[in-house]
Amino acid sequence: MLTEAELDRVCVVLVRARNPSNIGAVARAMHDFGFSRLRAVNEYPVPFEAAKSAVDASDVMAAAQACANVADAVADCTLVVGTTAVGERHLHHELLPLAAAAPRMLAELRREPTSQNRDGHAGGRVAILFGSEKTGLSNEELSHCNWLLTIPMRNHAGARHVSMNLGQAAAVCLYELVRESGAASAPPAPAVMAQNAGAASGPATAAQLERLTALLNEILDATEYARRHAHNADPAHIRRLVRRIGADAIDAPVWIGILKQILWKLGVPPEEPPRA
Amino acid sequence: MLTEAELDRVCVVLVRARNPSNIGAVARAMHDFGFSRLRAVNEYPVPFEAAKSAVDASDVMAAAQACANVADAVADCTLVVGTTAVGERHLHHELLPLAAAAPRMLAELRREPTSQNRDGHAGGRVAILFGSEKTGLSNEELSHCNWLLTIPMRNHAGARHVSMNLGQAAAVCLYELVRESGAASAPPAPAVMAQNAGAASGPATAAQLERLTALLNEILDATEYARRHAHNADPAHIRRLVRRIGADAIDAPVWIGILKQILWKLGVPPEEPPRA
Repeated sequence: MLTEAELDRVCVVLVRARNPSNIGAVARAMHDFGFSRLRAVNEYPVPFEAAKSAVDASDVMAAAQACANVADAVADCTLVVGTTAVGERHLHHELLPLAAAAPRMLAELRREPTSQNRDGHAGGRVAILFGSEKTGLSNEELSHCNWLLTIPMRNHAGARHVSMNLGQAAAVCLYELVRESGAASAPPAPAVMAQNAGAASGPATAAQLERLTALLNEILDATEYARRHAHNADPAHIRRLVRRIGADAIDAPVWIGILKQILWKLGVPPEEPPRA
Repeated sequence: MLTEAELDRVCVVLVRARNPSNIGAVARAMHDFGFSRLRAVNEYPVPFEAAKSAVDASDVMAAAQACANVADAVADCTLVVGTTAVGERHLHHELLPLAAAAPRMLAELRREPTSQNRDGHAGGRVAILFGSEKTGLSNEELSHCNWLLTIPMRNHAGARHVSMNLGQAAAVCLYELVRESGAASAPPAPAVMAQNAGAASGPATAAQLERLTALLNEILDATEYARRHAHNADPAHIRRLVRRIGADAIDAPVWIGILKQILWKLGVPPEEPPRA
């Protein structure tokens, strides 16, 4: 997880974004992942008002800053990363796929204070630049960047490949940054799986499965299935069949209850006192 | 990287999507990452026409299918994954964060063919369900799912947290799947291998599981179980119960045969011609 302070040191910079609804969509993605610093670089007044309708992102929009140029927008940042769809343009920068870019950005956010850090702050500030929907970032704008990242996409044969939707690109980049922060610190997948195993509980005990097997065998006899499909009804096959369903502990009593009810309806007397 | 065949075995299912521009946005994200199978479940005619303006996604929209219900939309899939923003709702399913969900989906797409795979297909088909913008997936819709995934987001104190924008959520999920395919490239997730190792067959299709569910519901009615244990016999609960057993493709016809035999013995006339 990113701390509040780390989230606060990430700036999303939209350069010449044209469509207010795209600005709103970026703000919403930022809100969803916990980021709040949005800056917009435009030659004309930024259409913030129109974007303020963005669902759930009013706090991000309210704090958004309009900047005269890229230099101003990234002035307080220690790492400036440009986003690009690559295309045919010759790039003068190092280019990393997003998954490789995220650890670098995170390292900057979490760097230790050093004697060279004049401001004495421990963590760096990272700007992520997105260009206009139509043209992306110009070479001049890219020149403010330390390096570039790209979201790997499918090459469609013959298609003049454009870029991703601005809101979607921002969502994917911010997701990857949050994802990486979790991978670096918190325990990964297994912990979460165990935690949620409660949703389905642990596996059934062998005793529960054996009880299920016995009841099922009774049903197969009573319904004449065993006589008609002798191969399928072979006891070992039935036992494997029941093991393969891998019932959860919480479900096993329900299944046992269902099978007992079937036997009751079939008129089969209980072989033993109920213990489901 | 995902192969063309693997990309083709992923279905994105939009359930009750209301806004044509959101459908278009999902189509665009699919196009960007190379996916093409889009299905929409709506009670009224799906606003495909309006969505066809989606930039760059005309091929995806042209091939989009309208489905009458969730069961139809996922019938040919061997793994059905629901997306949820969690919230306060009590979940009955196993829930994985996206980064842990992707390897499982990938393993299903890349599972090996086995001698028991009657259809001879190597890879499974994976459906990813997204609910309506406003309400997400209902419990009934979730009951068609094997398990759920969630995109980890920031909890905003005091905010009634809603979900992500539909197009952004789809973009993030598809990005993660493509990302994982690059990371893993060869060996599937060990846990999943182990889980299926004993089974020696692929999972049942959603259509097989739905057939099992329908037969089981008939039995619960005929045996009066449904009347006596109304809570357990709730249709959504029964559907989840059957999904949780995770029957194999090879076992599903056996289970269907057993349930049909029980119904026959109980004197319940077949509702439809046998197709087990």
